[in-house]
Amino acid sequence: MDSTALAYQMREQFDELICLSINYAQRHVKELDYAHRTAAALEAEWLVVNIPGWGALADSVLTQEGDAIPHGHYAEESMIKTVVPFRNPIMLGIAMSIASSRKADAIAIAVHAGDHFVYPDCRPDFITAFREMSVKALEGLHHPRLLAPFLYISKTDIVEVGERFKVPWHQTWSCYEGESIHCGRCGTCTERLEAFAEAGVKDLGTPYTDTEYWKTVTT
Amino acid sequence: MDSTALAYQMREQFDELICLSINYAQRHVKELDYAHRTAAALEAEWLVVNIPGWGALADSVLTQEGDAIPHGHYAEESMIKTVVPFRNPIMLGIAMSIASSRKADAIAIAVHAGDHFVYPDCRPDFITAFREMSVKALEGLHHPRLLAPFLYISKTDIVEVGERFKVPWHQTWSCYEGESIHCGRCGTCTERLEAFAEAGVKDLGTPYTDTEYWKTVTT
Repeated sequence: MDSTALAYQMREQFDELICLSINYAQRHVKELDYAHRTAAALEAEWLVVNIPGWGALADSVLTQEGDAIPHGHYAEESMIKTVVPFRNPIMLGIAMSIASSRKADAIAIAVHAGDHFVYPDCRPDFITAFREMSVKALEGLHHPRLLAPFLYISKTDIVEVGERFKVPWHQTWSCYEGESIHCGRCGTCTERLEAFAEAGVKDLGTPYTDTEYWKTVTT
Repeated sequence: MDSTALAYQMREQFDELICLSINYAQRHVKELDYAHRTAAALEAEWLVVNIPGWGALADSVLTQEGDAIPHGHYAEESMIKTVVPFRNPIMLGIAMSIASSRKADAIAIAVHAGDHFVYPDCRPDFITAFREMSVKALEGLHHPRLLAPFLYISKTDIVEVGERFKVPWHQTWSCYEGESIHCGRCGTCTERLEAFAEAGVKDLGTPYTDTEYWKTVTT
Protein backbone atom coordinates (compact mmCIF):
# COMPACT_ATOMS: atom_id res chain seq x y z
CA MET A 1 0.00 0.00 0.00
CA ASP A 2 2.98 2.34 0.61
CA SER A 3 4.43 1.75 -2.86
CA THR A 4 1.00 2.05 -4.44
CA ALA A 5 0.26 5.38 -2.76
CA LEU A 6 3.71 6.53 -3.87
CA ALA A 7 3.04 5.47 -7.46
CA TYR A 8 -0.18 7.48 -7.48
CA GLN A 9 1.65 10.53 -6.10
CA MET A 10 4.47 10.20 -8.65
CA ARG A 11 1.90 9.86 -11.44
CA GLU A 12 0.77 13.38 -10.50
CA GLN A 13 4.29 14.81 -10.35
CA PHE A 14 5.91 13.36 -13.48
CA ASP A 15 4.97 13.03 -17.15
CA GLU A 16 6.21 9.49 -17.44
CA LEU A 17 6.14 6.73 -14.83
CA ILE A 18 7.78 3.30 -14.71
CA CYS A 19 6.85 0.85 -11.97
CA LEU A 20 9.60 -1.61 -11.05
CA SER A 21 8.96 -4.85 -9.17
CA ILE A 22 11.64 -7.16 -7.84
CA ASN A 23 11.04 -10.88 -7.45
CA TYR A 24 13.50 -12.03 -4.80
CA ALA A 25 11.60 -15.23 -4.04
CA GLN A 26 9.70 -13.47 -1.25
CA ARG A 27 6.88 -15.57 0.24
CA HIS A 28 4.50 -12.80 -0.68
CA VAL A 29 5.61 -12.70 -4.31
CA LYS A 30 1.90 -12.34 -5.11
CA GLU A 31 2.45 -8.63 -4.36
CA LEU A 32 3.76 -8.48 -7.92
CA ASP A 33 0.31 -9.27 -9.36
CA TYR A 34 -1.03 -6.30 -7.43
CA ALA A 35 1.83 -4.09 -8.60
CA HIS A 36 1.10 -5.11 -12.18
CA ARG A 37 -2.52 -4.03 -11.82
CA THR A 38 -1.44 -0.73 -10.23
CA ALA A 39 0.89 -0.01 -13.16
CA ALA A 40 -1.90 -0.81 -15.62
CA ALA A 41 -4.35 1.47 -13.77
CA LEU A 42 -1.78 4.30 -13.92
CA GLU A 43 -0.93 3.62 -17.57
CA ALA A 44 2.67 3.15 -16.48
CA GLU A 45 5.23 0.78 -17.90
CA TRP A 46 5.73 -2.18 -15.56
CA LEU A 47 9.16 -3.80 -15.27
CA VAL A 48 10.02 -6.94 -13.33
CA VAL A 49 13.53 -8.01 -12.46
CA ASN A 50 13.79 -11.60 -11.26
CA ILE A 51 16.53 -12.40 -8.79
CA PRO A 52 15.24 -15.39 -6.82
CA GLY A 53 18.79 -16.73 -6.35
CA TRP A 54 19.55 -13.80 -4.07
CA GLY A 55 16.51 -14.39 -1.85
CA ALA A 56 17.43 -18.05 -1.52
CA LEU A 57 20.81 -17.00 -0.07
CA ALA A 58 19.53 -14.22 2.21
CA ASP A 59 18.82 -15.01 5.84
CA SER A 60 15.23 -13.83 6.44
CA VAL A 61 11.89 -15.43 7.24
CA LEU A 62 10.58 -13.64 4.16
CA THR A 63 12.69 -15.84 1.89
CA GLN A 64 13.36 -19.00 3.94
CA GLU A 65 10.37 -21.33 3.94
CA GLY A 66 11.40 -23.20 7.10
CA ASP A 67 10.83 -20.31 9.51
CA ALA A 68 7.53 -18.89 10.74
CA ILE A 69 6.63 -15.24 10.08
CA PRO A 70 6.52 -13.51 13.49
CA HIS A 71 3.26 -11.96 14.67
CA GLY A 72 2.86 -8.53 16.25
CA HIS A 73 4.00 -4.95 15.86
CA TYR A 74 7.14 -3.82 14.01
CA ALA A 75 8.48 -2.46 17.29
CA GLU A 76 8.82 -5.98 18.70
CA GLU A 77 12.20 -7.65 18.85
CA SER A 78 11.06 -10.73 16.92
CA MET A 79 10.55 -8.54 13.83
CA ILE A 80 14.27 -8.54 13.11
CA LYS A 81 13.70 -11.96 11.52
CA THR A 82 11.77 -10.22 8.73
CA VAL A 83 14.78 -8.15 7.73
CA VAL A 84 16.31 -9.16 4.40
CA PRO A 85 19.89 -7.88 4.88
CA PHE A 86 20.76 -5.15 2.35
CA ARG A 87 17.44 -5.43 0.55
CA ASN A 88 16.95 -1.74 -0.17
CA PRO A 89 20.53 -1.13 -1.42
CA ILE A 90 19.99 -3.92 -3.95
CA MET A 91 16.49 -2.89 -5.00
CA LEU A 92 17.43 0.79 -5.24
CA GLY A 93 20.60 -0.26 -7.08
CA ILE A 94 18.63 -2.02 -9.79
CA ALA A 95 16.23 0.94 -10.01
CA MET A 96 19.13 3.39 -10.26
CA SER A 97 20.85 1.35 -12.98
CA ILE A 98 17.72 1.25 -15.12
CA ALA A 99 16.83 4.89 -14.41
CA SER A 100 20.32 6.07 -15.34
CA SER A 101 20.16 4.02 -18.54
CA ARG A 102 16.77 5.54 -19.42
CA LYS A 103 17.88 9.08 -18.45
CA ALA A 104 15.08 9.30 -15.90
CA ASP A 105 14.78 12.33 -13.60
CA ALA A 106 14.35 10.33 -10.44
CA ILE A 107 13.65 7.05 -8.70
CA ALA A 108 11.33 6.87 -5.70
CA ILE A 109 10.95 4.56 -2.71
CA ALA A 110 8.09 4.38 -0.18
CA VAL A 111 10.07 3.86 3.03
CA HIS A 112 8.27 5.54 5.94
CA ALA A 113 8.71 6.38 9.61
CA GLY A 114 7.02 3.17 10.82
CA ASP A 115 9.72 1.14 9.06
CA HIS A 116 12.46 2.75 11.12
CA PHE A 117 11.95 0.53 14.16
CA VAL A 118 13.22 -2.61 12.53
CA TYR A 119 14.60 -1.95 9.03
CA PRO A 120 17.94 -0.09 9.03
CA ASP A 121 17.80 0.38 5.24
CA CYS A 122 14.60 2.39 5.58
CA ARG A 123 16.06 5.04 7.90
CA PRO A 124 16.98 8.62 6.96
CA ASP A 125 20.71 8.00 7.53
CA PHE A 126 20.64 5.16 5.03
CA ILE A 127 18.80 7.21 2.42
CA THR A 128 21.32 10.04 2.80
CA ALA A 129 24.27 7.64 2.54
CA PHE A 130 22.77 5.92 -0.51
CA ARG A 131 22.37 9.29 -2.22
CA GLU A 132 26.02 10.13 -1.55
CA MET A 133 27.18 6.73 -2.81
CA SER A 134 25.07 7.17 -5.96
CA VAL A 135 26.75 10.46 -6.81
CA LYS A 136 30.12 8.67 -6.76
CA ALA A 137 28.93 5.53 -8.58
CA LEU A 138 27.43 7.57 -11.43
CA GLU A 139 30.13 10.25 -11.81
CA GLY A 140 30.15 11.30 -15.46
CA LEU A 141 26.94 9.35 -16.21
CA HIS A 142 23.30 10.36 -15.99
CA HIS A 143 22.35 10.66 -12.32
CA PRO A 144 18.68 10.37 -11.31
CA ARG A 145 17.66 11.80 -7.95
CA LEU A 146 16.44 9.48 -5.17
CA LEU A 147 13.07 10.55 -3.79
CA ALA A 148 11.67 9.24 -0.50
CA PRO A 149 8.67 11.49 0.17
CA PHE A 150 7.26 9.30 2.98
CA LEU A 151 10.55 9.10 4.89
CA TYR A 152 9.31 11.09 7.87
CA ILE A 153 5.61 10.28 7.82
CA SER A 154 3.67 7.39 9.32
CA LYS A 155 1.63 4.71 7.58
CA THR A 156 -1.45 6.51 8.92
CA ASP A 157 -0.31 9.59 7.01
CA ILE A 158 0.19 7.40 3.91
CA VAL A 159 -3.47 6.34 4.12
CA GLU A 160 -4.36 10.02 4.06
CA VAL A 161 -2.06 10.69 1.09
CA GLY A 162 -3.58 7.73 -0.75
CA GLU A 163 -7.09 8.93 -0.07
CA ARG A 164 -6.28 12.22 -1.82
CA PHE A 165 -5.28 10.26 -4.93
CA LYS A 166 -8.21 7.83 -4.60
CA VAL A 167 -5.94 4.80 -4.30
CA PRO A 168 -8.01 1.61 -4.63
CA TRP A 169 -6.68 -0.02 -1.43
CA HIS A 170 -8.22 -3.40 -2.25
CA GLN A 171 -5.74 -3.50 -5.17
CA THR A 172 -2.77 -3.50 -2.77
CA TRP A 173 -1.14 -6.44 -1.00
CA SER A 174 0.72 -6.12 2.32
CA CYS A 175 0.75 -9.51 4.11
CA TYR A 176 4.14 -11.23 4.46
CA GLU A 177 2.48 -14.66 4.58
CA GLY A 178 1.37 -14.49 0.96
CA GLU A 179 -1.66 -16.75 1.53
CA SER A 180 -5.01 -16.29 -0.22
CA ILE A 181 -6.10 -13.45 2.11
CA HIS A 182 -4.25 -11.13 4.53
CA CYS A 183 -3.40 -12.90 7.84
CA GLY A 184 -3.99 -9.87 10.08
CA ARG A 185 -1.25 -10.97 12.49
CA CYS A 186 2.14 -10.39 10.84
CA GLY A 187 4.01 -7.10 11.27
CA THR A 188 2.81 -5.53 8.07
CA CYS A 189 -0.83 -6.63 8.52
CA THR A 190 -0.81 -5.29 12.09
CA GLU A 191 0.60 -1.99 10.91
CA ARG A 192 -1.88 -1.79 8.03
CA LEU A 193 -4.93 -2.39 10.24
CA GLU A 194 -3.66 0.16 12.77
CA ALA A 195 -3.04 2.78 10.07
CA PHE A 196 -6.52 2.50 8.58
CA ALA A 197 -8.10 2.63 12.03
CA GLU A 198 -6.07 5.70 13.04
CA ALA A 199 -6.84 7.45 9.76
CA GLY A 200 -10.55 6.65 10.13
CA VAL A 201 -10.59 5.09 6.64
CA LYS A 202 -12.20 1.77 5.76
CA ASP A 203 -9.88 -0.86 4.20
CA LEU A 204 -12.74 -1.96 1.96
CA GLY A 205 -12.39 -5.11 -0.11
CA THR A 206 -9.36 -6.50 1.77
CA PRO A 207 -10.42 -9.56 3.77
CA TYR A 208 -8.32 -10.64 6.80
CA THR A 209 -8.13 -13.98 8.59
CA ASP A 210 -7.97 -12.09 11.91
CA THR A 211 -9.26 -8.52 12.22
CA GLU A 212 -8.93 -8.25 16.02
CA TYR A 213 -5.40 -9.41 16.85
CA TRP A 214 -3.69 -6.10 15.99
CA LYS A 215 -5.60 -4.29 18.77
CA THR A 216 -3.86 -6.46 21.36
CA VAL A 217 -0.29 -5.84 20.20
CA THR A 218 -0.02 -2.24 19.01
CA THR A 219 2.42 -0.27 21.11
CA MET B 1 42.33 -12.16 -14.02
CA ASP B 2 41.87 -9.43 -11.38
CA SER B 3 39.17 -11.35 -9.52
CA THR B 4 41.14 -14.59 -9.81
CA ALA B 5 44.31 -13.04 -8.38
CA LEU B 6 42.15 -11.59 -5.59
CA ALA B 7 40.60 -15.00 -4.87
CA TYR B 8 44.07 -16.53 -4.55
CA GLN B 9 45.14 -13.74 -2.20
CA MET B 10 41.99 -14.08 -0.06
CA ARG B 11 42.51 -17.85 0.09
CA GLU B 12 45.79 -17.10 1.90
CA GLN B 13 44.24 -14.59 4.28
CA PHE B 14 41.04 -16.33 5.37
CA ASP B 15 40.08 -19.79 6.60
CA GLU B 16 36.96 -19.97 4.50
CA LEU B 17 36.36 -18.56 1.02
CA ILE B 18 33.19 -18.18 -1.05
CA CYS B 19 33.43 -17.11 -4.70
CA LEU B 20 30.37 -15.24 -6.00
CA SER B 21 29.60 -14.83 -9.69
CA ILE B 22 26.84 -12.67 -11.11
CA ASN B 23 25.18 -13.51 -14.41
CA TYR B 24 23.79 -10.19 -15.67
CA ALA B 25 23.49 -11.39 -19.28
CA GLN B 26 26.95 -10.03 -20.05
CA ARG B 27 28.24 -10.99 -23.50
CA HIS B 28 31.21 -12.57 -21.83
CA VAL B 29 29.10 -14.71 -19.50
CA LYS B 30 31.59 -17.46 -20.25
CA GLU B 31 33.74 -15.81 -17.57
CA LEU B 32 31.53 -17.74 -15.13
CA ASP B 33 32.94 -21.09 -16.35
CA TYR B 34 36.41 -19.80 -15.55
CA ALA B 35 35.26 -18.54 -12.16
CA HIS B 36 33.77 -21.95 -11.43
CA ARG B 37 37.11 -23.63 -12.16
CA THR B 38 38.94 -21.08 -9.98
CA ALA B 39 36.61 -21.80 -7.06
CA ALA B 40 37.13 -25.54 -7.52
CA ALA B 41 40.93 -25.12 -7.64
CA LEU B 42 40.78 -23.12 -4.39
CA GLU B 43 38.37 -25.57 -2.74
CA ALA B 44 36.00 -22.64 -2.27
CA GLU B 45 32.22 -22.67 -2.39
CA TRP B 46 30.99 -21.16 -5.65
CA LEU B 47 27.73 -19.21 -5.73
CA VAL B 48 26.00 -17.84 -8.80
CA VAL B 49 23.23 -15.27 -8.70
CA ASN B 50 21.35 -14.92 -11.98
CA ILE B 51 19.91 -11.52 -12.79
CA PRO B 52 19.77 -11.37 -16.58
CA GLY B 53 16.67 -9.17 -16.49
CA TRP B 54 18.77 -6.34 -15.08
CA GLY B 55 21.41 -6.56 -17.82
CA ALA B 56 18.70 -6.50 -20.45
CA LEU B 57 17.52 -3.14 -19.08
CA ALA B 58 20.97 -1.58 -18.58
CA ASP B 59 22.40 0.64 -21.28
CA SER B 60 25.84 -0.83 -22.06
CA VAL B 61 27.52 -2.52 -24.98
CA LEU B 62 28.31 -5.33 -22.54
CA THR B 63 24.65 -6.26 -22.30
CA GLN B 64 23.07 -4.91 -25.51
CA GLU B 65 23.75 -7.19 -28.47
CA GLY B 66 23.14 -4.52 -31.08
CA ASP B 67 26.19 -2.39 -30.30
CA ALA B 68 29.84 -3.15 -31.08
CA ILE B 69 32.41 -3.45 -28.28
CA PRO B 70 34.84 -0.51 -28.72
CA HIS B 71 38.50 -1.26 -29.36
CA GLY B 72 41.46 0.41 -27.67
CA HIS B 73 42.65 1.52 -24.27
CA TYR B 74 40.43 2.20 -21.24
CA ALA B 75 41.57 5.82 -21.32
CA GLU B 76 39.75 6.41 -24.63
CA GLU B 77 36.44 8.22 -24.67
CA SER B 78 34.65 5.42 -26.53
CA MET B 79 35.14 3.16 -23.50
CA ILE B 80 32.26 4.84 -21.68
CA LYS B 81 29.99 2.57 -23.75
CA THR B 82 31.30 -0.39 -21.75
CA VAL B 83 30.06 1.06 -18.48
CA VAL B 84 27.10 -0.80 -17.00
CA PRO B 85 25.58 1.97 -14.87
CA PHE B 86 25.63 1.09 -11.15
CA ARG B 87 27.09 -2.36 -11.74
CA ASN B 88 29.36 -2.48 -8.70
CA PRO B 89 26.76 -1.15 -6.23
CA ILE B 90 24.46 -3.99 -7.33
CA MET B 91 27.13 -6.70 -7.36
CA LEU B 92 28.58 -5.57 -4.03
CA GLY B 93 25.04 -5.30 -2.69
CA ILE B 94 24.30 -8.94 -3.44
CA ALA B 95 27.66 -9.95 -1.98
CA MET B 96 27.02 -7.90 1.16
CA SER B 97 23.53 -9.39 1.62
CA ILE B 98 24.84 -12.94 1.41
CA ALA B 99 27.92 -12.18 3.51
CA SER B 100 25.84 -10.56 6.25
CA SER B 101 23.47 -13.56 6.20
CA ARG B 102 26.43 -15.96 6.52
CA LYS B 103 28.14 -13.84 9.21
CA ALA B 104 31.24 -13.50 7.02
CA ASP B 105 34.14 -11.29 8.08
CA ALA B 106 34.48 -9.50 4.77
CA ILE B 107 33.66 -9.24 1.10
CA ALA B 108 36.34 -8.36 -1.45
CA ILE B 109 36.37 -6.74 -4.89
CA ALA B 110 39.22 -6.54 -7.42
CA VAL B 111 38.78 -2.97 -8.66
CA HIS B 112 42.17 -1.47 -9.51
CA ALA B 113 43.77 1.81 -10.55
CA GLY B 114 43.49 1.08 -14.28
CA ASP B 115 39.70 0.92 -13.92
CA HIS B 116 39.55 4.50 -12.66
CA PHE B 117 39.75 6.09 -16.10
CA VAL B 118 36.34 4.96 -17.21
CA TYR B 119 34.43 3.20 -14.41
CA PRO B 120 33.22 5.59 -11.69
CA ASP B 121 32.13 2.69 -9.48
CA CYS B 122 35.73 1.41 -9.33
CA ARG B 123 37.18 4.63 -7.87
CA PRO B 124 38.33 5.18 -4.28
CA ASP B 125 35.56 7.73 -3.61
CA PHE B 126 32.95 5.19 -4.57
CA ILE B 127 34.45 2.46 -2.38
CA THR B 128 34.53 4.86 0.58
CA ALA B 129 30.93 5.94 -0.01
CA PHE B 130 29.78 2.34 -0.39
CA ARG B 131 31.41 1.45 2.94
CA GLU B 132 29.63 4.34 4.65
CA MET B 133 26.30 3.37 3.11
CA SER B 134 26.80 -0.25 4.22
CA VAL B 135 27.27 0.77 7.84
CA LYS B 136 23.88 2.47 7.75
CA ALA B 137 22.12 -0.27 5.77
CA LEU B 138 23.26 -2.98 8.20
CA GLU B 139 22.84 -1.10 11.49
CA GLY B 140 22.05 -3.70 14.16
CA LEU B 141 22.84 -6.61 11.79
CA HIS B 142 26.08 -8.42 11.05
CA HIS B 143 28.34 -6.09 9.05
CA PRO B 144 31.14 -7.58 6.91
CA ARG B 145 34.02 -5.29 5.93
CA LEU B 146 34.53 -4.36 2.27
CA LEU B 147 38.08 -5.11 1.10
CA ALA B 148 39.54 -3.66 -2.11
CA PRO B 149 43.25 -4.49 -1.87
CA PHE B 150 43.99 -3.61 -5.52
CA LEU B 151 42.31 -0.19 -5.36
CA TYR B 152 45.53 1.78 -5.80
CA ILE B 153 47.61 -0.66 -7.83
CA SER B 154 47.78 -1.23 -11.58
CA LYS B 155 46.93 -4.35 -13.57
CA THR B 156 50.69 -4.81 -14.04
CA ASP B 157 51.00 -4.98 -10.25
CA ILE B 158 48.15 -7.52 -10.20
CA VAL B 159 50.14 -9.77 -12.54
CA GLU B 160 52.96 -9.60 -10.01
CA VAL B 161 50.62 -10.38 -7.10
CA GLY B 162 49.18 -13.31 -9.05
CA GLU B 163 52.63 -14.65 -9.84
CA ARG B 164 53.37 -14.84 -6.11
CA PHE B 165 50.30 -17.05 -5.67
CA LYS B 166 51.02 -19.05 -8.86
CA VAL B 167 47.70 -18.06 -10.45
CA PRO B 168 47.10 -20.22 -13.55
CA TRP B 169 46.43 -17.26 -15.89
CA HIS B 170 45.14 -19.49 -18.69
CA GLN B 171 42.24 -20.31 -16.33
CA THR B 172 41.08 -16.67 -16.39
CA TRP B 173 38.86 -14.91 -18.91
CA SER B 174 39.02 -11.16 -19.62
CA CYS B 175 37.65 -10.44 -23.12
CA TYR B 176 34.39 -8.48 -23.35
CA GLU B 177 33.52 -10.09 -26.68
CA GLY B 178 33.01 -13.54 -25.17
CA GLU B 179 33.97 -15.38 -28.37
CA SER B 180 35.93 -18.64 -28.42
CA ILE B 181 39.31 -16.91 -27.82
CA HIS B 182 40.35 -13.46 -26.53
CA CYS B 183 39.95 -10.75 -29.22
CA GLY B 184 43.05 -8.74 -28.26
CA ARG B 185 41.39 -5.46 -29.25
CA CYS B 186 38.74 -4.59 -26.66
CA GLY B 187 39.59 -2.45 -23.63
CA THR B 188 40.12 -5.33 -21.27
CA CYS B 189 42.21 -7.39 -23.75
CA THR B 190 44.37 -4.36 -24.50
CA GLU B 191 44.92 -3.75 -20.81
CA ARG B 192 45.65 -7.43 -20.17
CA LEU B 193 48.28 -7.68 -22.90
CA GLU B 194 49.90 -4.44 -21.74
CA ALA B 195 49.99 -5.64 -18.11
CA PHE B 196 51.70 -8.94 -18.92
CA ALA B 197 54.21 -7.18 -21.18
CA GLU B 198 55.01 -4.55 -18.52
CA ALA B 199 55.34 -7.22 -15.83
CA GLY B 200 57.58 -9.29 -18.06
CA VAL B 201 55.35 -12.33 -17.53
CA LYS B 202 54.14 -14.65 -20.29
CA ASP B 203 50.34 -15.00 -20.63
CA LEU B 204 50.80 -18.68 -21.45
CA GLY B 205 47.86 -20.71 -22.72
CA THR B 206 45.63 -17.72 -23.54
CA PRO B 207 45.30 -17.42 -27.32
CA TYR B 208 44.36 -14.04 -28.86
CA THR B 209 42.91 -13.22 -32.27
CA ASP B 210 45.20 -10.17 -32.43
CA THR B 211 48.37 -9.98 -30.34
CA GLU B 212 49.76 -6.78 -31.91
CA TYR B 213 46.91 -4.25 -31.86
CA TRP B 214 47.40 -3.24 -28.19
CA LYS B 215 50.88 -1.85 -28.94
CA THR B 216 49.36 0.75 -31.26
CA VAL B 217 46.78 2.10 -28.79
CA THR B 218 48.31 2.07 -25.34
CA THR B 219 48.61 5.56 -23.93
